Amino acid sequence: MADLVKVALGDRTYPINIGSGVLRSADLAFLAGADVFMIADAAVDALHGGAVAARLASAGARVERTTVPSGEGSKVMSCAAGLCEKAAACNLDRKAFVVALGGGMTGDLAGFVAAIYLRGVRFIQVPTTLLAMVDSAVGGKTGVNLPQGKNLVGSFHQPVAVLADLDLLDTLPEREYLSGFAEVVKYGVICDAGFIDSLARDAAALRRRDKAALQTVVARCCAFKAEVVGADEREQGRRAILNFGHTLAHALENVEGYGCWLHGEAVAIGVGYALDLSVRRLGLPAEAAARVKELLRSFGLPGRGDVEAKKAAWAPLRRAMNTDKKTAGRKPRFVLVEALGRVRTGCEVSEDLLQEVWDVCR
Amino acid sequence: MADLVKVALGDRTYPINIGSGVLRSADLAFLAGADVFMIADAAVDALHGGAVAARLASAGARVERTTVPSGEGSKVMSCAAGLCEKAAACNLDRKAFVVALGGGMTGDLAGFVAAIYLRGVRFIQVPTTLLAMVDSAVGGKTGVNLPQGKNLVGSFHQPVAVLADLDLLDTLPEREYLSGFAEVVKYGVICDAGFIDSLARDAAALRRRDKAALQTVVARCCAFKAEVVGADEREQGRRAILNFGHTLAHALENVEGYGCWLHGEAVAIGVGYALDLSVRRLGLPAEAAARVKELLRSFGLPGRGDVEAKKAAWAPLRRAMNTDKKTAGRKPRFVLVEALGRVRTGCEVSEDLLQEVWDVCR
Repeated sequence: MADLVKVALGDRTYPINIGSGVLRSADLAFLAGADVFMIADAAVDALHGGAVAARLASAGARVERTTVPSGEGSKVMSCAAGLCEKAAACNLDRKAFVVALGGGMTGDLAGFVAAIYLRGVRFIQVPTTLLAMVDSAVGGKTGVNLPQGKNLVGSFHQPVAVLADLDLLDTLPEREYLSGFAEVVKYGVICDAGFIDSLARDAAALRRRDKAALQTVVARCCAFKAEVVGADEREQGRRAILNFGHTLAHALENVEGYGCWLHGEAVAIGVGYALDLSVRRLGLPAEAAARVKELLRSFGLPGRGDVEAKKAAWAPLRRAMNTDKKTAGRKPRFVLVEALGRVRTGCEVSEDLLQEVWDVCR
Repeated sequence: MADLVKVALGDRTYPINIGSGVLRSADLAFLAGADVFMIADAAVDALHGGAVAARLASAGARVERTTVPSGEGSKVMSCAAGLCEKAAACNLDRKAFVVALGGGMTGDLAGFVAAIYLRGVRFIQVPTTLLAMVDSAVGGKTGVNLPQGKNLVGSFHQPVAVLADLDLLDTLPEREYLSGFAEVVKYGVICDAGFIDSLARDAAALRRRDKAALQTVVARCCAFKAEVVGADEREQGRRAILNFGHTLAHALENVEGYGCWLHGEAVAIGVGYALDLSVRRLGLPAEAAARVKELLRSFGLPGRGDVEAKKAAWAPLRRAMNTDKKTAGRKPRFVLVEALGRVRTGCEVSEDLLQEVWDVCR
């Protein structure tokens, strides 16, 4: 039995369908007669593209398929421009749908195309990674990267539906699968300490991709995110809590020589860093930080200590933080926690403490 | 005494300041301490860039200036991407403002940059052409062109203020100045037959750029547009009336060999064509159509007869109409008028009539 989570945004309210086989079982009658522009990650397309396109066609859609090369290199303006040109060359009109089939990169890129093509057409997310299912496919943030930083260009553009079919996770490489748990754990840290406990309890089942355990976790994370997005769609306030751990994560991803981490892995390192900052700046109990870091490790995720093995100069990381979108007046602001599940946004942290925590903590 | 027209959009309501010297007189105190990214048309920048930047700086803003080459060639995705990269290289954060200084091209491009940079920053329009003052600078449509057609990529992103300083029109080349009257006359056709009469009466004063006559006309057009946009920001219905004359105009601008017309000139030809369609399809009195076409001619604007002097094959124009954003199911829909000031949207027109009116009417 699939879970259904609603993102409540007035007349733009939309459902997230979560479960094994939801691509088959979801009601797609609204696609009858519509043009669909399906943008797929090339690697995912090879595994699932035909089946997904056939399912969309069986709902009555005319499907135009295109792929983008896997990897963050596709998440750039020139690629978005090329996709818009393809859409125009197919004569897709304002009534068309864009469907994203892939992970966070594909969803962010295709969502941006949907946001700007003809000043906006409807958009459906079919996330194929755990990270996209629990985070990037939900909430309407779309965008591409600039040479100066990640997600510096984009749009708020909500999907009309998210189809999180857990069967698509079966083919996900192990490292990519596990990286999704960084965002999962993040929800526990910022929203619900009890969720940390249940993740620790179910870690083994989750690692072996048990569908029932996964469904519970994905539905829970989507419900967290839906609540936050419903309260603050455009990140004027509360939504900023979702950036917990992301200031350092984006810097790690941006600085040459650090870019070897998957997004989730960078977030895991960033979550550890933000927890250590929280201990020093807001008095979060050190044992709470340690417990979360241990949970991240149990999902095979890296921490600050794993960065040292590579290149670990502070100055370029610190500079990269200045292009973070949360930066105000060239000082980065941090989301920190006073206790697990209790969060504070807009925290300034002294330069000394920023570097000290980077140098010292593990 | 400047005119002030409000575009009523709830908490995104904004003022249009219209008059001689409004750049000096407008209250820009809200810019104190802000970063401003001023994007100027290169030709305009040479004439007015320094003075406008100095005025913004005198309000307390830190101003970063950049220019784009004049002409429609700059209104493309790669140029928008380059501007976003410049903004990021200047470390412009979410509290920054983008200021557009130029005509429709500059406003559409800079507005699109403001819409997508960091998923949206605030935007101020300083239009320097008549056409931009009465049309493109008001209403929040931003965007760039694709090889397949005009404005096929973009965003709805309202400015926080429009400063229509009529003094900037003094340096506008005659042909560009006059081309703005195509959109002015359009408002009369779709909104108010009486406005057609007053334009005919004041044509001589307007042609010599009399400031009082101009202020009345610009304020009236902005009030028309503000009313339409306030009622239907995202063109779900009523706003479509503003596209009167634009289906053919965009096709004329897109088809190679026709692109010799300024936008306003293409609109003038398109308005004449839509009037002739209206006569044949909705029974608009032929003398009403003739009166408006005569008014357009009195502003030195071209009509269908002037196209024949160049290249006038129907087939490529007809094909170009299919990439129009109003097209549904590959049939273009037209905005037509039953009487001057009384409009009907979504009109289908038979293929025969489309071509016949093109072939026969003048």
